Amino acid sequence: METAGKGVSVNKEALVQVAEEVRRATGLPVGWRDVERTLGALRATRDLWEAVRLSRVPLRFLVPIWESLARRGLLRVEEGLDLLAEVPAPRPGEAACPACEGRGLVGERLPGRAAERFFAWAKERPEAIQDFDQGYVTPESTLARVALAWNWGDLEGKEVLVLGDDDLTGLAAALTGLPKRVVVLDADPRIVRFLERAAKAEGLPLEAHVHDLREPLPEAWVHAFHTFFTDPVEGPLGLQAFVGRGLLALEGEGCAGYVGLTHVEASLAKWADFQRFLLENGAVITELRDGFHVYENWGYIEQMRAWPWLPVKRRPEKPWYTSALIRLELLRRADLENARVEGDLQDEEATTY
Amino acid sequence: METAGKGVSVNKEALVQVAEEVRRATGLPVGWRDVERTLGALRATRDLWEAVRLSRVPLRFLVPIWESLARRGLLRVEEGLDLLAEVPAPRPGEAACPACEGRGLVGERLPGRAAERFFAWAKERPEAIQDFDQGYVTPESTLARVALAWNWGDLEGKEVLVLGDDDLTGLAAALTGLPKRVVVLDADPRIVRFLERAAKAEGLPLEAHVHDLREPLPEAWVHAFHTFFTDPVEGPLGLQAFVGRGLLALEGEGCAGYVGLTHVEASLAKWADFQRFLLENGAVITELRDGFHVYENWGYIEQMRAWPWLPVKRRPEKPWYTSALIRLELLRRADLENARVEGDLQDEEATTY
Repeated sequence: METAGKGVSVNKEALVQVAEEVRRATGLPVGWRDVERTLGALRATRDLWEAVRLSRVPLRFLVPIWESLARRGLLRVEEGLDLLAEVPAPRPGEAACPACEGRGLVGERLPGRAAERFFAWAKERPEAIQDFDQGYVTPESTLARVALAWNWGDLEGKEVLVLGDDDLTGLAAALTGLPKRVVVLDADPRIVRFLERAAKAEGLPLEAHVHDLREPLPEAWVHAFHTFFTDPVEGPLGLQAFVGRGLLALEGEGCAGYVGLTHVEASLAKWADFQRFLLENGAVITELRDGFHVYENWGYIEQMRAWPWLPVKRRPEKPWYTSALIRLELLRRADLENARVEGDLQDEEATTY
Repeated sequence: METAGKGVSVNKEALVQVAEEVRRATGLPVGWRDVERTLGALRATRDLWEAVRLSRVPLRFLVPIWESLARRGLLRVEEGLDLLAEVPAPRPGEAACPACEGRGLVGERLPGRAAERFFAWAKERPEAIQDFDQGYVTPESTLARVALAWNWGDLEGKEVLVLGDDDLTGLAAALTGLPKRVVVLDADPRIVRFLERAAKAEGLPLEAHVHDLREPLPEAWVHAFHTFFTDPVEGPLGLQAFVGRGLLALEGEGCAGYVGLTHVEASLAKWADFQRFLLENGAVITELRDGFHVYENWGYIEQMRAWPWLPVKRRPEKPWYTSALIRLELLRRADLENARVEGDLQDEEATTY
């Protein structure tokens, strides 16, 4: 957290108290994350309107939150809104693309020279292999994904979990210097060793573990994180296993997850089932950006299950495999079952809708 | 539709037949729109991988669709995939932002010099007035919205409905020269007259009608459109009224709607309720891009209901009001009630979560 030479310092408990107070006084469903966002925006601006824009909190919530903060001596309201305390709230990121009024995102703006350092590491990465159904996105895509999380305040001071990381998202997130801690789980020991080497060389709060996501999530990681990233195997079971584990790993209300989803492997009927699954488990979708990730072509394409079906047997010359990025946020803790997932997830993906 | 000097020409019925055939043969939930997308992509490329990327259809659907098209003599499969017929399928748009790998959108690439002509008209537009709760987005935002619809194949050859149009989306859509017909409904006679004047001057297939969306949708517009756009009043009732009318106006499966949604007026709890409403009515979310639209500041801000609450009474100097853009697509026809909506929608918006 930034040190601004301010006297007072508040902790997360204070955020929860402000939310409770406003909820009681107004009857509105104000959560601690609304308070966090309000404070994060005030770290970036003292202008009321700019604070509204950056907060992403309804005006009807913001006004009583500001009042409560002022009563507690955390905010001075005169010509502008001046924060009087150090607050545990991420400053919203600034990764908006300058060429399209911020409708796109660019990773180059990430703090800590993260982009430059990430590009260097990405050159040394292990190649994609079929054993783990690997295939990874361009470094620009990984950085843009991390940039979206930065924009949403899901990195700074947060504990971040990456479930399966052939895209090296955990490394890019850690290189920003923002997260408190990044944990990566991957079934491939090559990825884990690579991340450990990068973490050591760069001195990052990044740890990686060999873990098969079909196994239950170890207790230490249940309800232990604020943000997760995953690119699920896209069978119905795979989606629920990967994303279900992610939801279970989140502490609760106000925590966020980032999920990749394709058209190549998933019909819109499956997308709808997945969206229903999210809503049923207390998650709201706050972003869904189609075509967000572009994959590098991988070496084993002629061994793909789909290859024999293809009417024209030619290796692709340009990137062709893309995926959407979904951001979800929990409105309440998700209490999913933490059971072992039986069966071959890739087989299921390849044989369903 | 493009004329490529091809002998055969197929109609929508052929698309429905291909979908049925593939559905029967494979048991997969293939819809006519999957076939349309497959064909639209083949208008843009003969390269198999590029066709996969542009189709946004699962590979497991694509292969049997291509086979069915080949059996019907509509497709020649040799070195590439060559379309042999004129097909009623929109070519996917190309509005991707060059600066962020296409994660953003720019309206400048719209066909028909639409952007240039739209900017000229936007200078003459009626000002926002409070009577109709107006406030409009920047011309760049309107064009980007239309560009997203172009990308998704929701304009070319389509019948388009705009429910409430202070953003002049109907005009921008018509200026691309792509839609078969654009119908705008708005409660403000000034907007309707302005659009009529522009339509006449430019010779556009654009009609505008004074209509209060609280009233039932006239029968002629029920299940009559392929694409709708709306920026609902964001009370729970307003959302369902505006978007419910939009869903009802769509012909059925494979048709799409574009909806604006803010944080300023809607909490994430309301977003979740709205997403549930969409899924319950057979719609899947295929895009949700936060911060997509930027509003121009409006003249009557000191008369806003929220003004007296604000702790700092200063007019905004920069744009501050933004909204997300949601694209939904129907997986089945939505049969909602077409009843009159009672009550003051703006009042409800201002007094709920």
